[in-house]
Amino acid sequence: MSNMSKERVLSGMRPTGKLHLGHYVGALQNWVKLQEQYDCFYFVADWHALTTNYADTSDIKASCIELIIDFLSAGLDPEKSTLFIQSHVPQHAELYLLLSMITPLGWLERVPTYKEQLENIKDKDLGMYGFLGYPALQTADIIIYKAKYVPVGQDQVPHLEISREIARRFHQFYPRKMHAGIAAPERDYVFPEPKPLLTPAAKLPGTDGRKMSKSYGNSILLSDPEAEIRAKLKTMVTDPARVRRTDPGNPDVCPVGDLHKIFSDAETMAKVNEGCRTAGIGCIQCKGWAADSIVRVLAPIQERRAKYEGNPKMVWDILEAGSAKARVAAEATMVEVREAMGMSHQYEAPNTSAAAESK
Amino acid sequence: MSNMSKERVLSGMRPTGKLHLGHYVGALQNWVKLQEQYDCFYFVADWHALTTNYADTSDIKASCIELIIDFLSAGLDPEKSTLFIQSHVPQHAELYLLLSMITPLGWLERVPTYKEQLENIKDKDLGMYGFLGYPALQTADIIIYKAKYVPVGQDQVPHLEISREIARRFHQFYPRKMHAGIAAPERDYVFPEPKPLLTPAAKLPGTDGRKMSKSYGNSILLSDPEAEIRAKLKTMVTDPARVRRTDPGNPDVCPVGDLHKIFSDAETMAKVNEGCRTAGIGCIQCKGWAADSIVRVLAPIQERRAKYEGNPKMVWDILEAGSAKARVAAEATMVEVREAMGMSHQYEAPNTSAAAESK
Repeated sequence: MSNMSKERVLSGMRPTGKLHLGHYVGALQNWVKLQEQYDCFYFVADWHALTTNYADTSDIKASCIELIIDFLSAGLDPEKSTLFIQSHVPQHAELYLLLSMITPLGWLERVPTYKEQLENIKDKDLGMYGFLGYPALQTADIIIYKAKYVPVGQDQVPHLEISREIARRFHQFYPRKMHAGIAAPERDYVFPEPKPLLTPAAKLPGTDGRKMSKSYGNSILLSDPEAEIRAKLKTMVTDPARVRRTDPGNPDVCPVGDLHKIFSDAETMAKVNEGCRTAGIGCIQCKGWAADSIVRVLAPIQERRAKYEGNPKMVWDILEAGSAKARVAAEATMVEVREAMGMSHQYEAPNTSAAAESK
Repeated sequence: MSNMSKERVLSGMRPTGKLHLGHYVGALQNWVKLQEQYDCFYFVADWHALTTNYADTSDIKASCIELIIDFLSAGLDPEKSTLFIQSHVPQHAELYLLLSMITPLGWLERVPTYKEQLENIKDKDLGMYGFLGYPALQTADIIIYKAKYVPVGQDQVPHLEISREIARRFHQFYPRKMHAGIAAPERDYVFPEPKPLLTPAAKLPGTDGRKMSKSYGNSILLSDPEAEIRAKLKTMVTDPARVRRTDPGNPDVCPVGDLHKIFSDAETMAKVNEGCRTAGIGCIQCKGWAADSIVRVLAPIQERRAKYEGNPKMVWDILEAGSAKARVAAEATMVEVREAMGMSHQYEAPNTSAAAESK
């Protein structure tokens, strides 16, 4: 099936450092699956990174390349998905500007993460115009590709709702003109309203038992070599009730148990359950098996990584080709956007003016 | 002297209806003079029109064409100046987005006209994100052409100050990298700080004696035919102290006297002074002379108008050619902007990374 007949999916990530297992389990793994069924556009959100990291952009380009290597290593296939850099598709900025004109300040000020981040991030001055407006840019990112679905976790569903609202508001002001041949009801609006495609949320603890997160310093990177993974696993916290080697444990309340559930096969899982609950195995042994499982999952990812890391020019070429494809799709939408707003770039003779054409 | 060696001037107007004598005297007349000395970029600010008129854009394109016909009729020469439509130069939107990331909300909220307009314009909902951000867009409009001067009235000098501040802030975060050959101090920053070029402000009353303004319904359009101009002048208020025909008057406190000072020659001015102060002439006669003077000033403007109105395709072609020229200039600046921010679109081999190049 060609991508033309597939429904479109859009997602992106900010280039803020090497990805860890949490990114893989919470997003990338799902993205890889989606590319079999959907026409997927995945992008490096470098402009979004500026909303919080505007003050130092010295490593932004290197971070973009690192992120795309993570994408490719995880199994995103440039033959199947369109992989691109946001800032190489200037149409996002044009649509952001147009959406900014119709987006009420109150909508942006009420976005929960806006206030949360203002309160929680104290080492940066986030009182910038662009930081307030990131939902408008995010909306442009999505609807410029007429994406039907956006893979998100349950916690991000409200974020997508503001994009749906902005799209509806655009349609309210700028319905399509009733040109000959574009009269059918389903062609009435430029954009589909993007729907969430829920990513199954697996609980992925970091080495300290809290949610795996770069800022906690508890993460296992997709690029960590085997020795590093094993060393990190060794320091990992376990079921706090299992104090002595002879105490039986409970994998259901153990961070290492959580890792097994995600990465280990049924046979290993059975050995863990039996051994831990009977004190037949120690935590060290159990952690070793968890490391085995993670190393096995990461093996093909790291094999691909070696190929791409050794050929940065090839990675760049993939990004350039994807960005060129994205520009074509984005520009096609912008032609419709400008037309709907009465601001097309085409010459119109005075006697076929906008007034005569409108409904 | 080629435009290459001239300093650049930038100005624009929103497409909000046909221009009147106030626009001519307060801006256009000066723009026409400036094109002899400077490399002038004059644009139709259709994106800016959206900040207040987003809810109905049905006539925006026709208004753009009307405005550019006013520009051309007034004497702006596409051979000397670059005349373009803002929305046809998408680079403005890209720079607007980048500047939005570093522009503090407080700066925008404190712009005097922002609060004034919020309070005074009650028939439109101006609580939009884009309305708040128009100084960021305006800054992008100016600095993307590296304009050295912006012709403004005294009252607009503070508006330009925020553009200077945003440019300085850009330079603070993103000074040029010290590449070989771009090391001289004057090449350290991407943008010159735009300076105001004060337009001599003449007092131009409308027919009711208040400042000529479209919203007061007291204006004489550049496109008004002679009969219309004479009819409007007949209704014009005069020196209120001159009640009877036999009362002597004072042209210095008379709106018609103000028109004479702007549009009449020395000989007519002398007749007016003598006749009014001695009650030797009546107001009707004096208004007739004022109409003569205005008709004489508008004659070449209306002659050019007839040519352009009869050939809208030629007008459009002028706009397209100007916009193409503007895009080249704007893109050249954006290449430098992206480079300064470490976000160039060029492939860089890892061993010549940003870190190695920075100061």
